[in-house]
Amino acid sequence: MASHEFTSIRSPRIKGARRLAKRAFRRREKRFLAEGPQAVREALAAPRGVVHEVYATSEAMQRHTDLRDAAYARAVPVHRVSLDVMAELAQTVTPQGVLAVCDFVDVPLSEVGPVRLAVVLSHVRDPGNAGTVLRTADAAGADVVVFTDASVDPYNGKCVRASAGSLFHLPVVVDVPIAAAIDHLRAAGARVFAADGRGDRDLHAAADAGALDSTVAWVFGNEAWGLPAETVALTDGAVSVPIFGAAESLNLATAAAVCLYTTARQQRA
Amino acid sequence: MASHEFTSIRSPRIKGARRLAKRAFRRREKRFLAEGPQAVREALAAPRGVVHEVYATSEAMQRHTDLRDAAYARAVPVHRVSLDVMAELAQTVTPQGVLAVCDFVDVPLSEVGPVRLAVVLSHVRDPGNAGTVLRTADAAGADVVVFTDASVDPYNGKCVRASAGSLFHLPVVVDVPIAAAIDHLRAAGARVFAADGRGDRDLHAAADAGALDSTVAWVFGNEAWGLPAETVALTDGAVSVPIFGAAESLNLATAAAVCLYTTARQQRA
Repeated sequence: MASHEFTSIRSPRIKGARRLAKRAFRRREKRFLAEGPQAVREALAAPRGVVHEVYATSEAMQRHTDLRDAAYARAVPVHRVSLDVMAELAQTVTPQGVLAVCDFVDVPLSEVGPVRLAVVLSHVRDPGNAGTVLRTADAAGADVVVFTDASVDPYNGKCVRASAGSLFHLPVVVDVPIAAAIDHLRAAGARVFAADGRGDRDLHAAADAGALDSTVAWVFGNEAWGLPAETVALTDGAVSVPIFGAAESLNLATAAAVCLYTTARQQRA
Repeated sequence: MASHEFTSIRSPRIKGARRLAKRAFRRREKRFLAEGPQAVREALAAPRGVVHEVYATSEAMQRHTDLRDAAYARAVPVHRVSLDVMAELAQTVTPQGVLAVCDFVDVPLSEVGPVRLAVVLSHVRDPGNAGTVLRTADAAGADVVVFTDASVDPYNGKCVRASAGSLFHLPVVVDVPIAAAIDHLRAAGARVFAADGRGDRDLHAAADAGALDSTVAWVFGNEAWGLPAETVALTDGAVSVPIFGAAESLNLATAAAVCLYTTARQQRA
């Protein structure tokens, strides 16, 4: 446990970590911030050693002794910081007192292993939605989540937090053009479906017809306007979650949850 | 179309509407604010005349002529307001220029018609989550959503926005103790299940066993700590959404989406 405490936000080390709140610096350094005890715990438990250093307040160090032990076991330095410094580093209004500087964890599409259930995000812009879909994909047993080049940065602080650790659980691919992602997944044996509220194929009917029984890749689009027709045309068809009531639509994360779990159930039946 | 424009936030009418951002005033006046063109449109289309008055900027009035027409057809006054006044009335950072003062729309539990699929919220505290569950319940064809007395106010601005109009689509019941809600729904023929990540019954197994084929009521709990054991004990059992990957859990709204759509599919098979 570090005895020195960083108390100045002007320390070069603190300024260096602080900069990772900005995408341009993240891309340059290929590092990002994972905030809160759960994210730090998952980062320290990730298969590869992705954590460079941990910053924590005295209070958080005492409360989360498991994190101190895990960092020690992996020879990851833990820096003690004042509340003021933590407030500066953290991107949340009420910081939880601990964050980690992590190496990027994404992998090239070519290195993703066998795929049974895949998720592709296209023009998903809200980091909270993207992180929630990542968490749901993980829960549903997906083998990969691809952030195509028009989607939000998965290393955005809000996305990392919404993923609740799932960013560290399954292969994440970034910066791939949508056509390349679809081509790759189809070559890997997947039927590729566009989740689209205007799709003429009903999700439950597709499941009943056996369309979701083998390898499936789902493409999810923008929160407001969905998927462009050119993207839908690249897939094996647009599928919509049925609306039984008077709602106009579902939101992105709940529609994704229904599509992914319906598929997982069919695949495992 | 109103020719007078309200430009002062000190106008008694504007102050009266502004107060509805606070729960205490909402409860006293049994009115709330529905913000944004979609919510106002749904409010004006609701079966009963729930809208007292509409406030809109000149720009919004010109853009949403359908709202002006709908208000006129229902004899609902439309007040033109300046951008400053709209900024004061609206609860969003970037107001969409139109909002409606509405009467409460909740109904007593005893007045809810036949139930096939019901949703009960217990200790759900985040208004965005509650609104998203309301929207998802509507989409899945639920017949009622009950906000038990320890849950967030459905008339909270964030909940109204997240519901995307669904607050006006299906019967909503408020301020009912959880035990009374469960008793009522069971008496109406429902099997009552607690959605609980620690539940020993798996959702897909329950569906396969036919447990979701007839009338079902789902109880969803707090975002952080779920449902108290006393509440689970009142139900016919705790059911968990299976986790196939490494995620610890799903968030409330996505878990609810999976439970409700799995049930809807079974009921309609």
